[in-house]
Amino acid sequence: MANSPEKEHPVETFGWAARDASGHLSPFNFSRRATGEDDVRFKVLYCGICHSDLHNIKNEWGLSIYPMVPGHEIVGEVTEVGSKVKKVRVGDKVGVGCMVGACHSCESCANDLENYCPKVILTYNGIHYDGTMTYGGYADSMVANERYVVRIPDGMRLDAAAPLLCAGITVYSPLKYFGLGEAGKHIGIVGLGGLGHVAVKFAKALGSKVTVISTSPNKKTDALEHLGADSFLASRDQDKMQAAMGTFDGIIDTVSAVHPIMPLLGLLKSHGKLIMVGAPYEPLELPVFSLIIGRKTMSGSGIGGMKETQEMIDFAAKHNIKADIEVISMDYVNKAMERLGKGDVRYRFVIDIGNTLAATKP
Amino acid sequence: MANSPEKEHPVETFGWAARDASGHLSPFNFSRRATGEDDVRFKVLYCGICHSDLHNIKNEWGLSIYPMVPGHEIVGEVTEVGSKVKKVRVGDKVGVGCMVGACHSCESCANDLENYCPKVILTYNGIHYDGTMTYGGYADSMVANERYVVRIPDGMRLDAAAPLLCAGITVYSPLKYFGLGEAGKHIGIVGLGGLGHVAVKFAKALGSKVTVISTSPNKKTDALEHLGADSFLASRDQDKMQAAMGTFDGIIDTVSAVHPIMPLLGLLKSHGKLIMVGAPYEPLELPVFSLIIGRKTMSGSGIGGMKETQEMIDFAAKHNIKADIEVISMDYVNKAMERLGKGDVRYRFVIDIGNTLAATKP
Repeated sequence: MANSPEKEHPVETFGWAARDASGHLSPFNFSRRATGEDDVRFKVLYCGICHSDLHNIKNEWGLSIYPMVPGHEIVGEVTEVGSKVKKVRVGDKVGVGCMVGACHSCESCANDLENYCPKVILTYNGIHYDGTMTYGGYADSMVANERYVVRIPDGMRLDAAAPLLCAGITVYSPLKYFGLGEAGKHIGIVGLGGLGHVAVKFAKALGSKVTVISTSPNKKTDALEHLGADSFLASRDQDKMQAAMGTFDGIIDTVSAVHPIMPLLGLLKSHGKLIMVGAPYEPLELPVFSLIIGRKTMSGSGIGGMKETQEMIDFAAKHNIKADIEVISMDYVNKAMERLGKGDVRYRFVIDIGNTLAATKP
Repeated sequence: MANSPEKEHPVETFGWAARDASGHLSPFNFSRRATGEDDVRFKVLYCGICHSDLHNIKNEWGLSIYPMVPGHEIVGEVTEVGSKVKKVRVGDKVGVGCMVGACHSCESCANDLENYCPKVILTYNGIHYDGTMTYGGYADSMVANERYVVRIPDGMRLDAAAPLLCAGITVYSPLKYFGLGEAGKHIGIVGLGGLGHVAVKFAKALGSKVTVISTSPNKKTDALEHLGADSFLASRDQDKMQAAMGTFDGIIDTVSAVHPIMPLLGLLKSHGKLIMVGAPYEPLELPVFSLIIGRKTMSGSGIGGMKETQEMIDFAAKHNIKADIEVISMDYVNKAMERLGKGDVRYRFVIDIGNTLAATKP
């Protein structure tokens, strides 16, 4: 069958895929396109496990197409470049994040905001220009148009850089756009997971005073001593929450479960901004009075454009910002997903594709 | 009893008050303070009926204290000024809006945003510096610190100016602050009531392209032919709503009943802004995905500072912006409240205090 994932393109590829909403991942033979003139092909070395991978393999957002090869925090080493590629050369370290294409003719694309293009093509579970499915980074190789390829600066640890391609840009972009990552600003980070822990590091490096806001008091030590936050606020401690009312310029909320937002709006100063980067599937309850009293703002933000993603990686390299990771082998991925569902990871799983994928080939 | 409303201050005052949550209004003798050195005293000529007056007399927000003299869209003629008053002279036309005091030492006050001061003193149902209740403009006279007194420009129609002191500033302030009232911007106004109809006029005068968005198709003619909107969008017409997706830079939502906001967020362009100036008592359902896809923003805004209120009135005078009103006599107020509850007014009731209040004196 010409259109089977294994035969539709010329380049044999091996990875792991989910076949149905059980979300169970297993070895999978598929194919990728030949290297086009604007394309960069690379051997995948590491791929982070984003919480959205877990949502997607289980079809929790109702948008999943199977078989699905997840993974959009992909780093590796360039093996081939198309004739027009200028950005990188064979041997360079590169990364691909959440997207691999867009329309390139809309206002968002013209402003380097491919992430907000209505026709953005996601790195996996998307439909590419040619009508074939896109497959992600739980695979031995990757190919992408150079616009969607990020250069990883020399000397950066590749495994700890991988999560920055999604988690990093997701928090860096709103810190910049909404003017929160600035000296003198007091910023709250809600939720200390994959997104939250890098948000603390970026906000600190940008000069903000950072308070971690969490339902888990046992994250206090980690927040203060390990991640470098200035303070910690246990969101279930009513007295402490009351005392902190009206003291934040902005809050980045990374929680993707349904949770109350009125207390967070209460923490903001007048004209303060609550930025949602976690995406609860069910609607949240919004008390409009809490927005009106103090002219407060609630916004969403989703990853970032490719130009800003490169800026973020360069900034991270300069300030030695790394994700805190647990490196796993490919055959541990189902167990890792189970642990991720329980929040049992500090703070991101990264699959050592380069050293452990080949051994799982049937 | 020294602390009775009738005796606590030296100046006898007559107005109409609600006595309990029935909201029924009836004649009421009370008192106001003597004219302090920074105070302006004026004979009330007109007072608009704001929808919040209806909420308050019926204690629908749970914050009402009785007896309550409502009214915060008050205009009149100055009868006495304190020794330090510089802003106005006896005989000048003036107005008082929603507030009569604030702390004057916080950041909001320092930035001419008394409306966001945590200690703002509302024109009625508030507690004044001296611990006595504040009483509003359904009364024969008013006294206020000059900071809270707006000069009404010569030649402006006083009855049609009254509603601008609340409805006008409530929509003017967010149009300016959020950068929506600008040439080339496409602005939606949701709800064509007291707030919405003046929002159309201000947005047009500021140079925006204006679309009225309403559940009532029968408001189309009024919106286009009478108020000067550029277009009309019936929010229950799914096809028209679908066709308008992603075409608005900003939307001012004046609806104070619970209503769906996902369709409104869908109407916004990427990075667009939905501004809530109506205040539903119950929380709204907020679909966070609708904010993240397109980095959209939802904000609240409540009236405006005194400096901006003066700017708004001067702008209105210059551009001949008037509220569309139905002038009523004092003894019609209970019937007017009944009609207001059913939305049966185009678009604001204004009580002719100067000519009709005295006759209701028992």
